[in-house]
Amino acid sequence: MKIAVDAMGGDDAPQSPVHGAVLAARELESEIVLVGDETKIRGVLAEHGNPERISVVHAGEVIEMDEPVATALRRKRKSSIHVGARLLRDGKVNGFVSAGNTGAVMAVTKVIVGTLDGVDRPALAVVLPTLAGRAVVLDVGANVDPKSSQLVQFALIGDQFAKALLDIRKPRIGLLSIGEEEVKGNELVRAAHQVLRQQTINFVGNVEARDLYRGRADVVVCDGFAGNILLKTSEAAVEMMQHLMREEFKRTLAGSLGGLLAKGAFRRLRQRVDYQEFGGALLLGVRGLTVIGHGRSSARAISNAVRLVEGYGASDLNRRVEDAVAHLVGPQPRRNGAPAEST
Amino acid sequence: MKIAVDAMGGDDAPQSPVHGAVLAARELESEIVLVGDETKIRGVLAEHGNPERISVVHAGEVIEMDEPVATALRRKRKSSIHVGARLLRDGKVNGFVSAGNTGAVMAVTKVIVGTLDGVDRPALAVVLPTLAGRAVVLDVGANVDPKSSQLVQFALIGDQFAKALLDIRKPRIGLLSIGEEEVKGNELVRAAHQVLRQQTINFVGNVEARDLYRGRADVVVCDGFAGNILLKTSEAAVEMMQHLMREEFKRTLAGSLGGLLAKGAFRRLRQRVDYQEFGGALLLGVRGLTVIGHGRSSARAISNAVRLVEGYGASDLNRRVEDAVAHLVGPQPRRNGAPAEST
Repeated sequence: MKIAVDAMGGDDAPQSPVHGAVLAARELESEIVLVGDETKIRGVLAEHGNPERISVVHAGEVIEMDEPVATALRRKRKSSIHVGARLLRDGKVNGFVSAGNTGAVMAVTKVIVGTLDGVDRPALAVVLPTLAGRAVVLDVGANVDPKSSQLVQFALIGDQFAKALLDIRKPRIGLLSIGEEEVKGNELVRAAHQVLRQQTINFVGNVEARDLYRGRADVVVCDGFAGNILLKTSEAAVEMMQHLMREEFKRTLAGSLGGLLAKGAFRRLRQRVDYQEFGGALLLGVRGLTVIGHGRSSARAISNAVRLVEGYGASDLNRRVEDAVAHLVGPQPRRNGAPAEST
Repeated sequence: MKIAVDAMGGDDAPQSPVHGAVLAARELESEIVLVGDETKIRGVLAEHGNPERISVVHAGEVIEMDEPVATALRRKRKSSIHVGARLLRDGKVNGFVSAGNTGAVMAVTKVIVGTLDGVDRPALAVVLPTLAGRAVVLDVGANVDPKSSQLVQFALIGDQFAKALLDIRKPRIGLLSIGEEEVKGNELVRAAHQVLRQQTINFVGNVEARDLYRGRADVVVCDGFAGNILLKTSEAAVEMMQHLMREEFKRTLAGSLGGLLAKGAFRRLRQRVDYQEFGGALLLGVRGLTVIGHGRSSARAISNAVRLVEGYGASDLNRRVEDAVAHLVGPQPRRNGAPAEST
């Protein structure tokens, strides 16, 4: 298997991505294709003793982390993201990993690689730790104003993903809302709820964040705005807890001693709540496999992302998604007499 | 000052609310009016030795915690929530505290008490702990599909609230979004951003959950769906962290010892992240003062809510909100030529 890694993506590029590629080439099965400024990449590779099973494809431009997506998409066609996406489209690699500008990776991949048959828009998915194991949340930022029919597509994509990648036979699909009753939620959620009930999936109804973390759903479907807020709030709340904990532990001698003794517990805790451990966010619904790491991705996160692509590559997820979407059950006309949204 | 407390609201009613009223009457300045089933209330009061400065107003019906709001609003006009709201409307009490069905308290209060001049819809606000102090978030669930003009009203309400109740001279107002640039966010957020820039408030632009918890805004404005997800996700993430921490600490002897030594640190941590410590959520924008406690509110949370009403009652917040909303700067026509939303 061949996997492209964007050497120019992330706050610490090219160091972290190249180092991550080195880890992956050493520990995993795949060949790695580093994409980006060849001179810089070769420089970092030399520091690591020019390991085997790593090749370089040059890309002359870099999309900055905070660069507006629309202009980057059109004007920087030689960017490492563009070049990586073309390798994927042309079948020269089986997957693409980037810790670059998330919006740019999504937009460029969508345009160059294209979406699956029957899928209107790709969804960004993350796998979050729960008290019971793991849950997939999608969309977490690709579509901020989706139609209800797109939420239904996300549910079918998430269903197939959880079956193929998380080994769950009959994934429980929940719809993120602000109350369990089907009348709760905003207009989008109420409309999606009605259509989801008709699908041949294990739809468990509306779920809240607490249900997600208690493991009451394997897949949580939401619009990209709400999903991104859920993801960012989780990260921020965990970060604040860790900060406050350090403060409170330092305040007394007993606390300081306790903190020292419990160092291992804290380390394990950090690992368990770090969704980067899974390898990053996945762009689902496109003709290929793209994993988007956090801008702050470490070398370890990059190599975890490569590992994720390897696991994913072994499944025939995309074919199954196309099949599921083709058999989507159409929505009933809405009660107020407005025409049903096309699916 | 006279404050009504819904004795029938909350999972543990009437015990917790009555006990909370007893704590409040003992520790605070106000007279408490307990509203609900008189026989049951007198029974619990007798257990507490029939303390002074507590009276009872009978209400013959109870709105259950999970009862649909629309039917409860119309059919249970003798509920403790209806009776409490009428006491507030008629000026017989200065504020109303309920840990009952949140949707019912919001709907009943809005209908019976009414909104302030110039305010279309009330907003539910919570005061969350941050690394730098506190921040107000509104709306967290009263309006799931607001117009951008309503978000602007919420900003003005939050501005006055932070000035009056949190003693902040020039509150920094942020708009919850999924990226800092003004082009980021969904359609609602992008429209609200443009109008907020024109107001005479200290608008600091879009903020994410991380900015909130790092204390980069004093007021965070959002629609009730996104705000509720932020609030519930924070609660759920903190709950999961505490659960995982207990698990990890127990796993080794050193961890168990560490956990014992750090007991005080954990207790302080729990207090700092518990937004109930502030007293509950506030229904802002209505002609009166209503505090809505969590369904699981303890007696202490109820008495904190009464304390909050006392502080709030001393301010002339509602008059200031009406004044601010009257001077709201109108939105510019939208770029696509569609008529501007009425404010």
